[in-house]
Amino acid sequence: MITINGKGVSNGVAVGPLYFYRRSTGAVPRVTDADPAVEWARFEAAKATAIGQLGELYEKALNEAGEEAAILFETHQMMLDDLDYVEAIQGLIESDHLNAEAAVSDTGVQFAEMFAAMDDSYMQARAADVKDISNRVVGILMGAVQGGIDSDVPVILASDDLAPSETVQLDKSKILGFVTAGGSGNSHTAILARTMGIPAIIGVGDQLKEAYEGKEVFVDGQTGEVVVDADEVTRDRLTKKQSKERALKELLDQLKGKPNETVDGKNIMVYCNIGNPGDMDAVLANDGGGIGLFRSEFLYLQGNDYPTEEEQFQAYKTVAERMGGKRVIIRTLDIGADKQADYFNLDHEENPAMGLRAIRICLTRPEVFKTQLRALYRASAYGKVAIMFPMITSVWEVQEIKRICKNVREELAAEGVPMADYVELGIMIETPSAVMMSDRLAKEVDFFSVGTNDLTQYTLAVDRQGNNLDKFYDSHHPAVLRMLKMAADNAHAAGIWIGICGELGADTSLTETFLAIGIDELSVSPASVLPLRNAIRSIDSRVNHDKILNELLQS
Amino acid sequence: MITINGKGVSNGVAVGPLYFYRRSTGAVPRVTDADPAVEWARFEAAKATAIGQLGELYEKALNEAGEEAAILFETHQMMLDDLDYVEAIQGLIESDHLNAEAAVSDTGVQFAEMFAAMDDSYMQARAADVKDISNRVVGILMGAVQGGIDSDVPVILASDDLAPSETVQLDKSKILGFVTAGGSGNSHTAILARTMGIPAIIGVGDQLKEAYEGKEVFVDGQTGEVVVDADEVTRDRLTKKQSKERALKELLDQLKGKPNETVDGKNIMVYCNIGNPGDMDAVLANDGGGIGLFRSEFLYLQGNDYPTEEEQFQAYKTVAERMGGKRVIIRTLDIGADKQADYFNLDHEENPAMGLRAIRICLTRPEVFKTQLRALYRASAYGKVAIMFPMITSVWEVQEIKRICKNVREELAAEGVPMADYVELGIMIETPSAVMMSDRLAKEVDFFSVGTNDLTQYTLAVDRQGNNLDKFYDSHHPAVLRMLKMAADNAHAAGIWIGICGELGADTSLTETFLAIGIDELSVSPASVLPLRNAIRSIDSRVNHDKILNELLQS
Repeated sequence: MITINGKGVSNGVAVGPLYFYRRSTGAVPRVTDADPAVEWARFEAAKATAIGQLGELYEKALNEAGEEAAILFETHQMMLDDLDYVEAIQGLIESDHLNAEAAVSDTGVQFAEMFAAMDDSYMQARAADVKDISNRVVGILMGAVQGGIDSDVPVILASDDLAPSETVQLDKSKILGFVTAGGSGNSHTAILARTMGIPAIIGVGDQLKEAYEGKEVFVDGQTGEVVVDADEVTRDRLTKKQSKERALKELLDQLKGKPNETVDGKNIMVYCNIGNPGDMDAVLANDGGGIGLFRSEFLYLQGNDYPTEEEQFQAYKTVAERMGGKRVIIRTLDIGADKQADYFNLDHEENPAMGLRAIRICLTRPEVFKTQLRALYRASAYGKVAIMFPMITSVWEVQEIKRICKNVREELAAEGVPMADYVELGIMIETPSAVMMSDRLAKEVDFFSVGTNDLTQYTLAVDRQGNNLDKFYDSHHPAVLRMLKMAADNAHAAGIWIGICGELGADTSLTETFLAIGIDELSVSPASVLPLRNAIRSIDSRVNHDKILNELLQS
Repeated sequence: MITINGKGVSNGVAVGPLYFYRRSTGAVPRVTDADPAVEWARFEAAKATAIGQLGELYEKALNEAGEEAAILFETHQMMLDDLDYVEAIQGLIESDHLNAEAAVSDTGVQFAEMFAAMDDSYMQARAADVKDISNRVVGILMGAVQGGIDSDVPVILASDDLAPSETVQLDKSKILGFVTAGGSGNSHTAILARTMGIPAIIGVGDQLKEAYEGKEVFVDGQTGEVVVDADEVTRDRLTKKQSKERALKELLDQLKGKPNETVDGKNIMVYCNIGNPGDMDAVLANDGGGIGLFRSEFLYLQGNDYPTEEEQFQAYKTVAERMGGKRVIIRTLDIGADKQADYFNLDHEENPAMGLRAIRICLTRPEVFKTQLRALYRASAYGKVAIMFPMITSVWEVQEIKRICKNVREELAAEGVPMADYVELGIMIETPSAVMMSDRLAKEVDFFSVGTNDLTQYTLAVDRQGNNLDKFYDSHHPAVLRMLKMAADNAHAAGIWIGICGELGADTSLTETFLAIGIDELSVSPASVLPLRNAIRSIDSRVNHDKILNELLQS
């Protein structure tokens, strides 16, 4: 038995075979005296695998994001069978004795250049597609694995911290838990784990050896324990803990359908944070009362180019329809900082967390912003869509945004496109400036939603992903709680509601404090809805609220 | 005539020959069939130049920072004459036919390794010295220039933005004005220019050609104009403007000795920001009422290792003595972020501005902190020294600092070292957290000093050195002014004073606002003392103060 200790960042016990995440590997190998028969057979096999993968992706996208998003994969299947493309590859294999990887890669580059040079925007856009399919085939030839996991059974996934673009493509049905070498409690892997309600342990360093792959591993996301080849006693202890958790889950399941109401009758909105339409199953399974934060970044991180209006519309519409009239708050793109997409061509920045990101990109590139707003307003006809803007610091930004929204609405109305009569507009409160200006900002919008992670990092001037800073980063810091109170008071004075959509909202040790402060809504990962409901239903706001506020605010 | 437009970041008109800053150039050349006679002669000449430079540096350090700091240069002179060292170089030149640069460089590396391997901490410390003198001689052989400027007459200095370590070593007596290709209004070059009271223009890009070197150039730091080979009309216009400025300066000179008093009799402390003891001449010449911010970083940026307690003590004592009993606020080291010294061995950070910096380093490396505190308390016997701590976010940090200070005092007292009976302790208010917690922090310290640059960047979550962010960075942002008001109210409630030591303090368009907010002290570059005094003396706080506060605070 080998026991490894990391830091638990998403609770729960899980057991399964250990599996190391497969990243596609470096440079494309090049051989100029390969055997043409062997290479051609390799290419044909890889092509067949690719077509199979694309078929699966088509089905998955159809379910999660609708026809428009799915059709891309069908197009890719057809391109892989294109005669010119296949013949070009064959030529390089047979005449130049190139290996299959190099032949596909060269052909991809050549066709992409050809498409890009055409005087037709549709054909130009195909340049990215032909590169995409070529990369997929090269990846298969080099042993890369679709979705990072090549296993028939669900696994405990080991990796470095995953990039946002990698989490988007993961085959989530195959994951029982996460163990990462580095990372932080606010990393994307940790956030994904909490959304999925499965355990995650970070910071195990190099203690987890590749030699353990395939062995049975227990992980306990509460204690940070990772146990390889558990002995009888440990197996027994962790299995019992897992059973207890399941029993608790059953108990919580009985709260489904019940209100988020305190003992003294105050109702709190408990909404869900989601990262893509695929998370909707978890929202409905956990009885989420609405979507408090739909991060639209997935649309921007999964492709090689800006998502089209139609692709976005389908994704937003899918979620709006599935929520059946309950509020769906969609946040406009929050690209920049640690979420990068190459095609945005953003400059390198010394301090990207305080750089050109989120609404700043939108206000600097109005055409990108308008495409997203058009999709959002179109989706508003299919449910109760609200739009939320990130990284606000100044009143003028909100006024400028509202002007652009008005233009977009008028444009769509002139085109006869159906829309909701009124679409709520809200802002993220995630900069200290937005807190300080919250009295004036509250008069401009329909709601506030506090992003506690960013607000805390700017307030404390501590990078939330940084190393060696744990001593100085305190997610319960009174400065942040006082800011919450200031923003809440200003929201209520202007007659609007205020929520929290940061990770902190799910921290039940703070629920009573949040209620004392006057928070109206908490948006959390689907897995946290019922535990939070449980906490709210045990609070009597007549008991401790004054004491909590006194301790917080009195000096 | 060629006119180039940049952004003026320090006012004033200057005229002089254009000169490009000389950086020491890349790799050391290596020739293995050089003529020994020629190379030996080159070495001897370079050695003589180096010894001359070191003599000048000795005199300069003696005046500016005292005997202890100066002695280093004398040691270097002696090492350059060390027989073993010189013979080793001679051997490489004569036997191996190496060129002088390579011979000196190799010998420096070899001797440094030898010293480092010795079992004696004094000799180990000499490793850095032998590298230093070798680098100096190699630099001279390769045409690098001491202090960056090889000109007999003062010049308009053109460069990329200068690094902090470069500004420390600049020969400031040779500079009439600055023109930089990139940079920002808050760059170190801009801050240096304002300290010196000379014009600076940034962001001219590649418009300024090396071919212009030596030509007469006019710069106007107010308009951002750079004029090469001015025609008669332009020359006339700018010369007149320069004369006007001089006349204004004479007018301001008449304010020397007068109080910083408003029309209705309120007195404001107008102090100076300095970067090293050499800035004291400017402080005294401009009638500064005290030192509001003595940045101790110069001690850490100019060497290859931590400055000794004695070196620090001499520098602090020099300034304390020269201020003759007026308050001298010395800030503990603010290394990290954009101010890096290699020997600190700090990890690379994704967002260094929100990383391990300033007080966070001190609280993580108490031995470095204690050395500085010992030097500060020792200097307190020679004037009115106060100690200020940067980057405070939490009450526990201040309590921990006070505990360390108490230990240091007790240690020094036990050693019988003379100290002031009471040394004021203050903190920088430069994180939003410090503002939010200012009621509790005010009870722990003797004064607050607001660092407006950092406070603004964290409040707005905008990197103050970043590109493409001008639209979102507003140094007059109401969120920051409201924070000033909050901190001022809490300071006064606890009976302590509050100042501003950020660049914004010198902005006379805000002086009336600062007074309305209740700011007690403004610490500015020496050149800004008299203009600020002029502004204060024209304000009647009975007239506009309520209106200013109403506009700022009412929503």
